[in-house]
Amino acid sequence: MSQNRRGKPVAVVIGATSKWQSDGRNTLLAHGHPVDDSELPVGIRWGVGGAVAQKFAQEGCFTVVTSRTEKNAAPLAAAIREQGGECLIVELDLVSQDSIVSAFATIREEAGDPDVLIYNAGYLEGRDLPADQELLEYIPIELFDTTQHIACRGPFLVAKEVLPAMRKKGAGSFFFSNNSSSLRGKKRMTGQSLYYPRVMMRTLAQVLTEEYSELGVHVANIIIDGSIDSPGSRALPRNQKRPDLVINPVKIAEAYWYLHTQDKSCWTHELQITPYASKPSY
Amino acid sequence: MSQNRRGKPVAVVIGATSKWQSDGRNTLLAHGHPVDDSELPVGIRWGVGGAVAQKFAQEGCFTVVTSRTEKNAAPLAAAIREQGGECLIVELDLVSQDSIVSAFATIREEAGDPDVLIYNAGYLEGRDLPADQELLEYIPIELFDTTQHIACRGPFLVAKEVLPAMRKKGAGSFFFSNNSSSLRGKKRMTGQSLYYPRVMMRTLAQVLTEEYSELGVHVANIIIDGSIDSPGSRALPRNQKRPDLVINPVKIAEAYWYLHTQDKSCWTHELQITPYASKPSY
Amino acid sequence: MSQNRRGKPVAVVIGATSKWQSDGRNTLLAHGHPVDDSELPVGIRWGVGGAVAQKFAQEGCFTVVTSRTEKNAAPLAAAIREQGGECLIVELDLVSQDSIVSAFATIREEAGDPDVLIYNAGYLEGRDLPADQELLEYIPIELFDTTQHIACRGPFLVAKEVLPAMRKKGAGSFFFSNNSSSLRGKKRMTGQSLYYPRVMMRTLAQVLTEEYSELGVHVANIIIDGSIDSPGSRALPRNQKRPDLVINPVKIAEAYWYLHTQDKSCWTHELQITPYASKPSY
Amino acid sequence: MSQNRRGKPVAVVIGATSKWQSDGRNTLLAHGHPVDDSELPVGIRWGVGGAVAQKFAQEGCFTVVTSRTEKNAAPLAAAIREQGGECLIVELDLVSQDSIVSAFATIREEAGDPDVLIYNAGYLEGRDLPADQELLEYIPIELFDTTQHIACRGPFLVAKEVLPAMRKKGAGSFFFSNNSSSLRGKKRMTGQSLYYPRVMMRTLAQVLTEEYSELGVHVANIIIDGSIDSPGSRALPRNQKRPDLVINPVKIAEAYWYLHTQDKSCWTHELQITPYASKPSY
Repeated sequence: MSQNRRGKPVAVVIGATSKWQSDGRNTLLAHGHPVDDSELPVGIRWGVGGAVAQKFAQEGCFTVVTSRTEKNAAPLAAAIREQGGECLIVELDLVSQDSIVSAFATIREEAGDPDVLIYNAGYLEGRDLPADQELLEYIPIELFDTTQHIACRGPFLVAKEVLPAMRKKGAGSFFFSNNSSSLRGKKRMTGQSLYYPRVMMRTLAQVLTEEYSELGVHVANIIIDGSIDSPGSRALPRNQKRPDLVINPVKIAEAYWYLHTQDKSCWTHELQITPYASKPSY
Repeated sequence: MSQNRRGKPVAVVIGATSKWQSDGRNTLLAHGHPVDDSELPVGIRWGVGGAVAQKFAQEGCFTVVTSRTEKNAAPLAAAIREQGGECLIVELDLVSQDSIVSAFATIREEAGDPDVLIYNAGYLEGRDLPADQELLEYIPIELFDTTQHIACRGPFLVAKEVLPAMRKKGAGSFFFSNNSSSLRGKKRMTGQSLYYPRVMMRTLAQVLTEEYSELGVHVANIIIDGSIDSPGSRALPRNQKRPDLVINPVKIAEAYWYLHTQDKSCWTHELQITPYASKPSY
Repeated sequence: MSQNRRGKPVAVVIGATSKWQSDGRNTLLAHGHPVDDSELPVGIRWGVGGAVAQKFAQEGCFTVVTSRTEKNAAPLAAAIREQGGECLIVELDLVSQDSIVSAFATIREEAGDPDVLIYNAGYLEGRDLPADQELLEYIPIELFDTTQHIACRGPFLVAKEVLPAMRKKGAGSFFFSNNSSSLRGKKRMTGQSLYYPRVMMRTLAQVLTEEYSELGVHVANIIIDGSIDSPGSRALPRNQKRPDLVINPVKIAEAYWYLHTQDKSCWTHELQITPYASKPSY
Repeated sequence: MSQNRRGKPVAVVIGATSKWQSDGRNTLLAHGHPVDDSELPVGIRWGVGGAVAQKFAQEGCFTVVTSRTEKNAAPLAAAIREQGGECLIVELDLVSQDSIVSAFATIREEAGDPDVLIYNAGYLEGRDLPADQELLEYIPIELFDTTQHIACRGPFLVAKEVLPAMRKKGAGSFFFSNNSSSLRGKKRMTGQSLYYPRVMMRTLAQVLTEEYSELGVHVANIIIDGSIDSPGSRALPRNQKRPDLVINPVKIAEAYWYLHTQDKSCWTHELQITPYASKPSY
């Protein structure tokens, strides 16, 4: 446990950077170029993952942030350290079982067994399919397989990595960042990712809740039911027009912290958060 | 606004006392006599309603507690005042439309328009039906009517009293205390209340969420998914044997406060809280 | 059992006429005058209730149709008899407990204990509230009370009338005609009835399913998820424009008959039927 | 279209044989040897898949039954032919994309484009994990991957094979055989398969319903909510003791036929069937 010298609780955020960060994939896809985030509050620069990582670091956790490439998470790590927090970047590619196994070996060695695991990975596969390829029959199998890795197989493999230690300790939090498409299967609209595999993430959260809650592990599925503020999404016309439909990730991070600190006598296993101006999804 | 001189925000708790308080109806039914609560923490003496009233008073609200008879709520009011809080007891019988109208006239005059309304009323009708009268066909119509008043008509009438002012102000919280029987219709087991009308309370919460959230009013249904600690319930053999299945009402009150203070960009409209040792109901 | 001389199975349809029949309340409200139904197939002239009554009579049941006034059901009864079926009109007003008790006394005497009970009553209360009175706070208490009688108290009282005999016999079907608003609480839109009490009908169906199915009584909630063809609704501009969104009540009646004849080893307790051209509600 | 000479409608049953047939994998696992099915009605000898194949053949379809090995389906094919029906066995292994592609090429050539597709594949992976390996952390990744092939990837690939032709024709039925574990994630109990991926099958059915129903394709998820009669399961002690909890597959097949013949104006997209003696799952 070389780097976590003070023995802080360990919080791991899988997918801590954002596809909507200043130079993120969605940002580039939507705007054609990076956006300037220097005027934006640091809390929102890396979406939910970055806000959660900052929050747990501020609250005294040794925070591990994972990303496919270290470089991608460097500005977030710098921000956490500037705020007096401690963090470690670990490279992790959810498509690869080897990468997952090796990343968690590193985490255990450099930080210790995770006390909190936040599965915050997402994908954008499907967004650039043209309007005449909206139907399921047009989804390429490779695209489907990627969504399976992020939403089905990845969570399963990560669960196998962290739950044994949490079970032995009789304590831990395992939270999933999810969206409203995890509630049921719906028609994919042009411009949307292939969302329906997200239902499996929610289902896994339900399985783990029934299996591990009584063993002291707090499992929860968080349904972020709206657009999330970030450098790339803030610049979208639809969010400019309706800022009342945009969620502040700093407040989302507070919700995660509230869940993590709930008394054992009253745990919440699914939390849906919706901007006041919209109807909650179901 | 004679009594709320400092113009504090007004929190109204409908049904602030408990059927399980030291001399409550359920306590007398289960134990045959009152129980001594002098050793118990003051936070749990009046169940959820009392804990919520204390919490909101401690956080700076002028707290109105309603009960069918003022005397029943006097010890709770005394406790709130001892803690430095301010409160007012108002008599209210949910079976009577006149009583509801008159109680809210008093509340508006003596405290002001409610900023927070917590509908915490319950009923025990059905609990003393014998084992050979478990089926619906044996439920007397008068018993059914009482459950309708508490779970269907009462919430409707209370909503009509408080929502216009909240709507005009563009702010307010309207929370329902509910239980897992509000999730769907189930077979009534011997010893249980006739729970299924509680589904209507949850449904009303869904209606009001869709109608009033965009107008700035935070509506939520809270599903308390377990046994609640209180003088009468703590003394039950099943709770003595499995304290890990009992929820601390002080922590429930914190959940209500968390909901009330959520940022408008991420409101939760249903919150289920379950002891870690049991599977969440659905 | 004076009238059911051949001892046919008894099917009772509560609310067998239609608010959308040629001179129904909705027809008059929407069109300002009765419409001519002489060109329409007889199967659809009285909506779901009339189609179900005809179907069960054709299949050999002695069919009891209830309506608030006998006259209202006379054309339906005549049609059933013309088709070679047998039927009896019984007046029944769901708002009155006395009327319910007395109607079922008549049914038992004149037809026998019901083998099939189809609760098909509806209401239109709320439809004529103006656009600036969409919110719940504007619903008059008398309007709310009527919906309670049709959707909550009426079904409870009818269940108490027919279930004891079905239970003793170990056989019977108790079906509820419901709509998509029974699935959850939603915002009432201008022109809609106050639908949310229909959730209680569905909830009662769930309760009765759990309580009476194992005793041999088949309980089911049927969710008719679209506009129903009938003289009054067919003439509406929106149905003229989109006939692919309109359900044929004769086919609905076949669904009821399918449910009634399902093998005991595989009973369905909720059946949702949706026009192919629309997405199923949830 | 060499074999379907009369141009009958084509019904394809994926997984038409049963793990519980006389020499099925579950039968061998549970009893240690094959069981004798010569006394059993032919309708139940191959579980749901076999009963559905017989029913659709009897109703005039050219029926294609798939199995991993032709030999496994030979007795079923013989029975269908004896009943005067026509059928074709096609080998198909859902784990292999090539096998799926090639099987459907054969089907199109030898029978024609499917008018009905019944996805009836199941798996037993997880059943032989010992009691001390109940938790998710003990599920081997290979076992998980197999469930993914049957419940997630297989249905996706099959959908891509058959939906384009159904869409072009504006007609077709695509039904999934599923069980109560498809409703939500639950704790896996010793002796159970790893069921939670079945939620993805249901979710896909929901997606396809929203995408293809308006194009004329009837999609439905059938929840078979109980034990299914078959040679191997009938011999189990728990089914001997409680025959009232066992579903007759011949009646299940009638349910599929009812769905297939529903009028377009009232399609059902999810059908749950439960033995009368048990409470419906949810």
